[in-house]
Formats: sequence, C-alpha cells, structure tokens
Amino acid sequence: MKKRKLLVAKIGGNIIENQDSLNSFLSDFAKIKQPKILVHGGGKSATNLAMRLGVRTEMIDGRRITSVENLEIVVKTYAGLLNKKIVASLQKHNCNALGLTGSDANVILAEKRPVQFIDYGYVGDVINVNADTIKEFLELGITPVFCAVTHDGNGQLLNTNADTIASEIASAMGDHYEVSLFYCFELKGVLEDIGDKDSVIEHINLEKYNKLIEAKIIADGMLPKLQNCFDALQKKVSEVHIANAEFIKDQTTKHTTLSL
Amino acid sequence: MKKRKLLVAKIGGNIIENQDSLNSFLSDFAKIKQPKILVHGGGKSATNLAMRLGVRTEMIDGRRITSVENLEIVVKTYAGLLNKKIVASLQKHNCNALGLTGSDANVILAEKRPVQFIDYGYVGDVINVNADTIKEFLELGITPVFCAVTHDGNGQLLNTNADTIASEIASAMGDHYEVSLFYCFELKGVLEDIGDKDSVIEHINLEKYNKLIEAKIIADGMLPKLQNCFDALQKKVSEVHIANAEFIKDQTTKHTTLSL
Repeated sequence: MKKRKLLVAKIGGNIIENQDSLNSFLSDFAKIKQPKILVHGGGKSATNLAMRLGVRTEMIDGRRITSVENLEIVVKTYAGLLNKKIVASLQKHNCNALGLTGSDANVILAEKRPVQFIDYGYVGDVINVNADTIKEFLELGITPVFCAVTHDGNGQLLNTNADTIASEIASAMGDHYEVSLFYCFELKGVLEDIGDKDSVIEHINLEKYNKLIEAKIIADGMLPKLQNCFDALQKKVSEVHIANAEFIKDQTTKHTTLSL
Repeated sequence: MKKRKLLVAKIGGNIIENQDSLNSFLSDFAKIKQPKILVHGGGKSATNLAMRLGVRTEMIDGRRITSVENLEIVVKTYAGLLNKKIVASLQKHNCNALGLTGSDANVILAEKRPVQFIDYGYVGDVINVNADTIKEFLELGITPVFCAVTHDGNGQLLNTNADTIASEIASAMGDHYEVSLFYCFELKGVLEDIGDKDSVIEHINLEKYNKLIEAKIIADGMLPKLQNCFDALQKKVSEVHIANAEFIKDQTTKHTTLSL
C-alpha cells in the first residue's frame, strides 16, 4: 500500500523574531492540506528574557549551556510564549494546531547529555520519538507544533536543538508516511559565498557535503544542520530541503536539495 | 447505558508554589485509574516574574488586569514553566499527561471580556469547551492538563480564571461522563471562621450559600469559587467538593461538599 505523504517543516529563530515573516509563513503553512508537523526554534527570545532577568547566556559552538535558570527561561519562552502564539495563530488560519514539548503525551524522550569535555547542563539528546502517538494526533486532523523542549521520563525537562527534533521526528514518522522535511529560514539555502545571498548551492549529496566541509564553505551552525539532514535521509525520510520560509508556498523557488 | 466516571481536579496557586505539596499531589493524582483531567492556576509565579521584569501587576477583586506585557508573562509562566513541569512530573509517575491551553486543538474558545466599568485587558470569558476533542484525548489514555490560558479563535491568547476553566470543562464533559469536580487547595474547605482552620463547613447548598454570603462568611476569592461550583452543579456535574490537596488520595478527610 502506498504511504500517505507527511510534511515536517522546521522554522528557525530569525523567522520567528519577525512578526510579519512569521504570520506570512503560518498563513501559508496552514493552507497545506496534507498531514503536517511544525517544529520551531526560538533562541533569541530566550536570550532576550535572560538579559532582562540578568541571567548569563553562554553558547559553545552555537549550543546553549543550559543551567537551571536558563532551562526555566527556555521553557517559559519556547513552550510558553512562542509555542502558544504560533498555535493560536494557526488556529486563526483554521489549522487545528496542538503545541507540544517532548513531555506532552511522552512524544519525545531524551537523555541529559553526558559530560565529556563540556558540561552543557540541561541539554537533552533524543532517545525515542513516539511515532504512534503523533500518528494518532495526525489522524484526528491535528497539526502537532513542537518546540525545542524534551524530557527524560524522570520529571526533568531538557533543552534540545530544534533542527535535531525535526530530523528525529521526520525519521520516526518514516515507518507510517512518505516524509518530506523542510528546513525554512531567512536565507535561500546553503550558500557558496556567505556574502552573496543568491549563491545557493542547489544540490548537495554526501560526497559534495564532505568536499564543502573540507573547503570550509560549510561551517558553524550549518554543519550540525546538514548533519541532521543526512541523518534523516539515511533513516526513512524521502526528501530534505533547506530553503527560505517562502518555500512553504512556492516549491519552485531556488533552494538547496539534499540527497545521499 | 451507564456513563463512565470522570474526575476533574483543580489545584490552586499555593499548592503549586510549594514543590513538596505539588509533588505529593501529583504522585497521588497519577495513581487514580479512572479518566481524569487536571486544571492548574499559578498566580504567584506570574506576579514574581512581573516583579523581576519591573512590570506592574494590578489586581481588582482578585482578578489580574492583563496588559499585553502581563499576558506574555502569564503565558510564559502558566503555559510554559508550570504546565510543563507538571506534565513532566506526571509522566514520571506513569500518567500520560498532555499540557493544554485553550488554543491547543481549539479545546477552549473564549472572548475578550467587554469593557464595562473595568477594563480587564486580555482576560477571556469561556464561550465553548470542545468536549469531543477532550473525550478523544481521554480515550487515547491521555490525561489533559489545562493551564489558565484560552484563545479567541482569532489569534489572540487570553488569561482566564482557572476555577472557571475547571467548572466549564466539568460541565461540558457532563454529556459524556458522570463528572466529579474537586477544587483542591491549602485549606480543608470553606471555613466558618477564617481564623480557625478546622472550622470546615461540611455541606453547603444554595440556600446555605446565600445565608453565608449575607453573613459575610463567604467573601473575596471564595465568592467566585463557590459560584463556579454551583454553576457546575446546575449544568451536568454530579458532585463538587472543595478540599485540601490531600483529599485526592483520601476522600474521607473533612472537607466541603456542595449541593443544589
């Protein structure tokens, strides 16, 4: 039997910070008729609240070192304000959104990252995505909206990278659906030259990926993002794209497509 | 056909503020085998965050005047930190909790309270509880956990009294279930003498309720709480109790039972 199609879209921090970009994206996303899942980040809002509260934010390689106080700020911002604003906005556009952390209905179980060289604090690595429960929500006509918070099953909430959550969910849903994964952000895709916003690399396979790393064209935050893309492709995800937020309504726009 | 039993329990601010009381309550609540719903307040946490951010909190008759900034604080605190801490803790106790605002799966629709003498700001009065969706969650073995945030269906989140949410949910579920509604807080029930914590009035019917109001024994925050109780009884709720949080594990403890 042919599997149904499922879209997993992830929107990044800069789209979320800009109210107009966010509204425009959500209005387009709501119009998609097939089953769909949204995953959102929201880093800057947490950093802003931390600043207002006088709480120090420490990042190493783009990862937030998450103290108890930082975790509370992350949960308030991601699971509270951002997630619920997005859900209410999707409801306005007749999309039956349901906001979720990994703890809700136990949909994503994680473990606190072990301390090796760096103690990331309350950062969680995904152990299991409960695909059956997510499928039950989808079958009720619900659109799950995930923020970047998981739990360890022992009462502890954990801060988990939103790109990774999107990749893990997309992979887990691959048993039930033919899954497309879109990473949407403010740029048009992976750029050959970071100074030229039109220098989009339209196709990246594993071989090209390794060459781009060697040439240092892919670096910083783009490295783990691409790793998440290839992880998803190596599991059960049919297609992965890195694109501008506008890609959600027009899939002919220039962007980056990943393949193995 | 005999209806299945459903418990709707509401826990108030003071239980939530105290980590030991909260843990103990949640551990007992998780043990209840029948379908159940939890509603929580959380006023003090929002007031504390407002203070730390230098945002003014204004209360009239125990109701929070909710400016844009206050609403953001309320959503961060209620829907974010408190709701997710409670959900993660229930998951630890093997209760499959799902945290919800009214906007999630459109479970509670409200309208912004019209300005008459007082402008309450972004405060919502409940228009509709989506009992069918809540029933679908219950049938999946999920325990819905509601915080005191609703939406207007037009993208606006609203601050809504948690006692009222509990009463409205209990009433709406009355078509499908035989519903018991427990209001759990730090006192043993409604007190004859506020200075004597053992002076519990064990039974209050409508007639006695009016007499207690006349005698000014029921006043302040207890007035709307009792009104919510009688509203629920007048709709389709089988039994309503106001009791200490310990009542959740031992229903023989002295408390207040309401009847028409």
